[in-house]
Amino acid sequence: MEKFDSKKLKGMVSQLKKLKFNMYHKDFLLTWQKPLDDIKAVLTFAEIFNSLYNNNISCKVFQTGLGVSFFRDKSTRTRMAFASACDLLGLSVQEMDEGKSQISHGETVRETANMISFLSQVIGVRDDMYLGRGHSFMKEVAASLDEGYKKDVLPQRPAVVNLQCDLDHPTQTLADLIHIKNYCGSYEKLKGKKIVMSWAYSASYGKPLSVPQGIIALMTRFGMDVTLAHPKGYELVPEVMEQAKTFAKKSSGKFKLTNNMKEAFVDADIVYPKSWAPYNIMLKRAELVKSNAPKEQLDKLEKECLAQNAEHKDWFYNKSLMKTTKKGNALYMHCLPADINGLNCVDGEVTLDVFEKFRLETYKEARNKPYVIAAMIFLCCFKEPVKYIEKIISKPFKRSGYYNII
Amino acid sequence: MEKFDSKKLKGMVSQLKKLKFNMYHKDFLLTWQKPLDDIKAVLTFAEIFNSLYNNNISCKVFQTGLGVSFFRDKSTRTRMAFASACDLLGLSVQEMDEGKSQISHGETVRETANMISFLSQVIGVRDDMYLGRGHSFMKEVAASLDEGYKKDVLPQRPAVVNLQCDLDHPTQTLADLIHIKNYCGSYEKLKGKKIVMSWAYSASYGKPLSVPQGIIALMTRFGMDVTLAHPKGYELVPEVMEQAKTFAKKSSGKFKLTNNMKEAFVDADIVYPKSWAPYNIMLKRAELVKSNAPKEQLDKLEKECLAQNAEHKDWFYNKSLMKTTKKGNALYMHCLPADINGLNCVDGEVTLDVFEKFRLETYKEARNKPYVIAAMIFLCCFKEPVKYIEKIISKPFKRSGYYNII
Amino acid sequence: MEKFDSKKLKGMVSQLKKLKFNMYHKDFLLTWQKPLDDIKAVLTFAEIFNSLYNNNISCKVFQTGLGVSFFRDKSTRTRMAFASACDLLGLSVQEMDEGKSQISHGETVRETANMISFLSQVIGVRDDMYLGRGHSFMKEVAASLDEGYKKDVLPQRPAVVNLQCDLDHPTQTLADLIHIKNYCGSYEKLKGKKIVMSWAYSASYGKPLSVPQGIIALMTRFGMDVTLAHPKGYELVPEVMEQAKTFAKKSSGKFKLTNNMKEAFVDADIVYPKSWAPYNIMLKRAELVKSNAPKEQLDKLEKECLAQNAEHKDWFYNKSLMKTTKKGNALYMHCLPADINGLNCVDGEVTLDVFEKFRLETYKEARNKPYVIAAMIFLCCFKEPVKYIEKIISKPFKRSGYYNII
Repeated sequence: MEKFDSKKLKGMVSQLKKLKFNMYHKDFLLTWQKPLDDIKAVLTFAEIFNSLYNNNISCKVFQTGLGVSFFRDKSTRTRMAFASACDLLGLSVQEMDEGKSQISHGETVRETANMISFLSQVIGVRDDMYLGRGHSFMKEVAASLDEGYKKDVLPQRPAVVNLQCDLDHPTQTLADLIHIKNYCGSYEKLKGKKIVMSWAYSASYGKPLSVPQGIIALMTRFGMDVTLAHPKGYELVPEVMEQAKTFAKKSSGKFKLTNNMKEAFVDADIVYPKSWAPYNIMLKRAELVKSNAPKEQLDKLEKECLAQNAEHKDWFYNKSLMKTTKKGNALYMHCLPADINGLNCVDGEVTLDVFEKFRLETYKEARNKPYVIAAMIFLCCFKEPVKYIEKIISKPFKRSGYYNII
Repeated sequence: MEKFDSKKLKGMVSQLKKLKFNMYHKDFLLTWQKPLDDIKAVLTFAEIFNSLYNNNISCKVFQTGLGVSFFRDKSTRTRMAFASACDLLGLSVQEMDEGKSQISHGETVRETANMISFLSQVIGVRDDMYLGRGHSFMKEVAASLDEGYKKDVLPQRPAVVNLQCDLDHPTQTLADLIHIKNYCGSYEKLKGKKIVMSWAYSASYGKPLSVPQGIIALMTRFGMDVTLAHPKGYELVPEVMEQAKTFAKKSSGKFKLTNNMKEAFVDADIVYPKSWAPYNIMLKRAELVKSNAPKEQLDKLEKECLAQNAEHKDWFYNKSLMKTTKKGNALYMHCLPADINGLNCVDGEVTLDVFEKFRLETYKEARNKPYVIAAMIFLCCFKEPVKYIEKIISKPFKRSGYYNII
Repeated sequence: MEKFDSKKLKGMVSQLKKLKFNMYHKDFLLTWQKPLDDIKAVLTFAEIFNSLYNNNISCKVFQTGLGVSFFRDKSTRTRMAFASACDLLGLSVQEMDEGKSQISHGETVRETANMISFLSQVIGVRDDMYLGRGHSFMKEVAASLDEGYKKDVLPQRPAVVNLQCDLDHPTQTLADLIHIKNYCGSYEKLKGKKIVMSWAYSASYGKPLSVPQGIIALMTRFGMDVTLAHPKGYELVPEVMEQAKTFAKKSSGKFKLTNNMKEAFVDADIVYPKSWAPYNIMLKRAELVKSNAPKEQLDKLEKECLAQNAEHKDWFYNKSLMKTTKKGNALYMHCLPADINGLNCVDGEVTLDVFEKFRLETYKEARNKPYVIAAMIFLCCFKEPVKYIEKIISKPFKRSGYYNII
């Protein structure tokens, strides 16, 4: 583990001071709606928290308070990352597992949002199953909290943090970005580096589009040479594609599209082969669910989807593709868990030998997530976050150890 | 949000000093078994905690310790309120979700009660499904803890807090009472104010009698003019009715009964239209469950109940009823969630226009609950609660912020 | 409750100083793999924590941090003990409930172990259902954490604590040992005391062998006269039996085996009648599960097992057996819940009159468990645990009370 380097920490703090960011009482829903300086502030704070943790310095800024873990799908990893982030700052986690049926009307979302927020500092929401729903739901929660706060129902405005919606997965992609930065050396060095976000085969159904969308819309802002590769039928939401193009232009980066996997990987610095569901099927599914279609129709759609996927079993990442990347050694990334051929599936996203080579790297990639979430909470809850951090650094207290017993 | 008003806080503390209360090591099961000064102490402490929270002052009086959330029915709201209260005081929440079968014998309740209490400060119990069971269960838990504490098994006597039983729902009704007090200006001003606790239609089955019982047995103690309205067949437990009569007499309040909804609301200051199950059906259900009757009999009873309810679909609160209340503008109350006609049901307890007018008020009503629970825990756990509060007020520490990092 | 006795505490600390133990960054999986001084250190620290707790002294040594509760079977008691231990030291608990299918491959255990450990100090694991699986699983988790820590994935090496596996149940047996010590007066006085670990009837299927194995392999190290009694077919794992023999020889204790229940109890100081599953059936079951055998085969095996158990309904502990023990009054022990004849079953492990006589004693036996777990965590996480404890004792802070608000 790194040694305590107060100079490095102070360096990060002076970077912060150069940024113009303002996230106080603002939610974190989609990276592309955030100014670049907000994004950079989250990244920097995440690294500061990571460094403080590694040096056994307490980041407990709340004596009491709740973080609500609001998952509309199952999850263990992101739950754990959210719980870790809350705990790091001193918040207790309460889980809120509402079935779909219980929050079916606008009115009830408003009510629920307020009921869970009287003593809460953050509501972390995952709602990624249905295209067209997750982001809308989060906005509705956020609007309800705005009303509650303005109308004197809530004593504070809790942060809403997107823990994956139908459009974006910001805590994942920002963790990914820190990993890429560590690999390249600095955010400046990302300019011109080629990253390939590629579809890959999986026997599963309904994986959200949020990770590939989040990747193309984030990495294009840092001047990277972004290639999106997928078979026909696996397009992403058009608005996000447009966003990525605009960002690439602005940052002097690139955004390329291809349906040819082999071509995509040539000379790549970084590769991200990962499965997602066909766009049209996701749209159809969302409609069926909205109209309460009979189960048979949904089952039929699932079969169609799996059949369509099965036509592209040759879309997986292996040694021979790796050899075509920059120096035959591009950084392999994955949000985990990956479908690994011959390990947890017959046909999947990646071969075992390649995965094994980068396995520990993918763990380190994942490790950034709790700190990214902690940064989002911190920036939403405190008006003068830089001042706080300076105080913590100038008078650090141990996270574990005797002097904490007071 | 209110500003920090140490004068107001000190005023509340001097009120406390005039009260003769003693809740140390005593549970909170039924409001009507508590002396009026105990009730007032809970109300005042709840408001003090609310004020401290709003002013970012830490109420953390436990460095470590557990609060056990023991729910024998599903719940998200009350769970959250209990979790918030525990967290506010510094306790971690552990959930205990025993199925009915696991705690079927007296012996096992005794054992379970002790097993979950070795390092616990409070056991919050909800058991409201069966008439004749919930309160008995809580008394059994309490007696088991008494034995454990006396016989040197437990290092402290955890508080048992009723989070809704078959008879009473004290954390709800005390939260309601604070809301009414805020509306009227002071507890003194409650005298003579007319409150109508009225049955209202719902398509659901088996809603407990605890809220209406709790309301009539609490509000009559504050000199209110309490009217209970319901169709025939929706009577409440006779002992509680007697209790309400006695309280009304003692406080120079009133307790009236009617089977006519329209008459009930005339000139009301406050209205509480809410559904509950028919008394006889609840009794029958409890017997069937006790005797392990076949499922068909229970299903038949449920159908009977729903049919009986359906005869009273005209019992709902709307604008024309509202017009007959004091100045056509009585305060509408509900413990939430309400059955709102045309929003989450076809026929329900209240029309959308009336509910919408008071929606934010019902949120504020609910907001009091965590502080009521915190007050109950605090009063049970500390021998000299007033002294503690005085110390907290005289030397306040921030709930969130840098100086808490120590 | 005991009064604060700093002399007694200091006495325990000086005992600690005489021990040569080193558990820093080491897991607690099987008692028989630990040097005797490690065992003694856990016991002494457990008693110190218990005493600090009883005297309202804070043991909070972590400002923030997670304890992961990883249960592969259902449990409420041990969950609660683990949660209490974590809370006592200042850790928040996160639960990890993975179904069998999700962690089916070696690769995935490695990944999961790291994913849940980024900010975690301890992983408490229960995996006791299948002979040959639980301990292996824990070793795999431990090896994964070793790799993660060495390869710079994890900032600390979390402790793995065995909360019951197929071979041992160390948190239970160490809690039992403290109880026995309290009963006899000191660990020295255990020498020559007769303890009978006896099989007893239960109508249930598949109870693990871990408790009887843990008892014989632990009590033989303290010079006790250990008798293991069971019907033929209820043998224990041979390696553990060998271990117990070796320990008995080394400690000048005894380890005897009998298939005669009556003979076993004669002159016993302590008795532990408890059910477990037939060895061969457990082996067979593990094989069937491993080979994904059809459900019918597993059901058939269960029937066989219950039939075999039923042949030994006469193996239960009652007054007449009790009369044959030392002074007719041997200490009765059980890890709870017990199968009590006529209370929660028709035929079970013990009669109601005998159980009732020792009921509160069994609660006190159970009470030690949270402190044993806290000791294991503490010893794994801190390099100089004795120094810490000395500081805590020399400058104690209140666990509950005003001065904690800082």
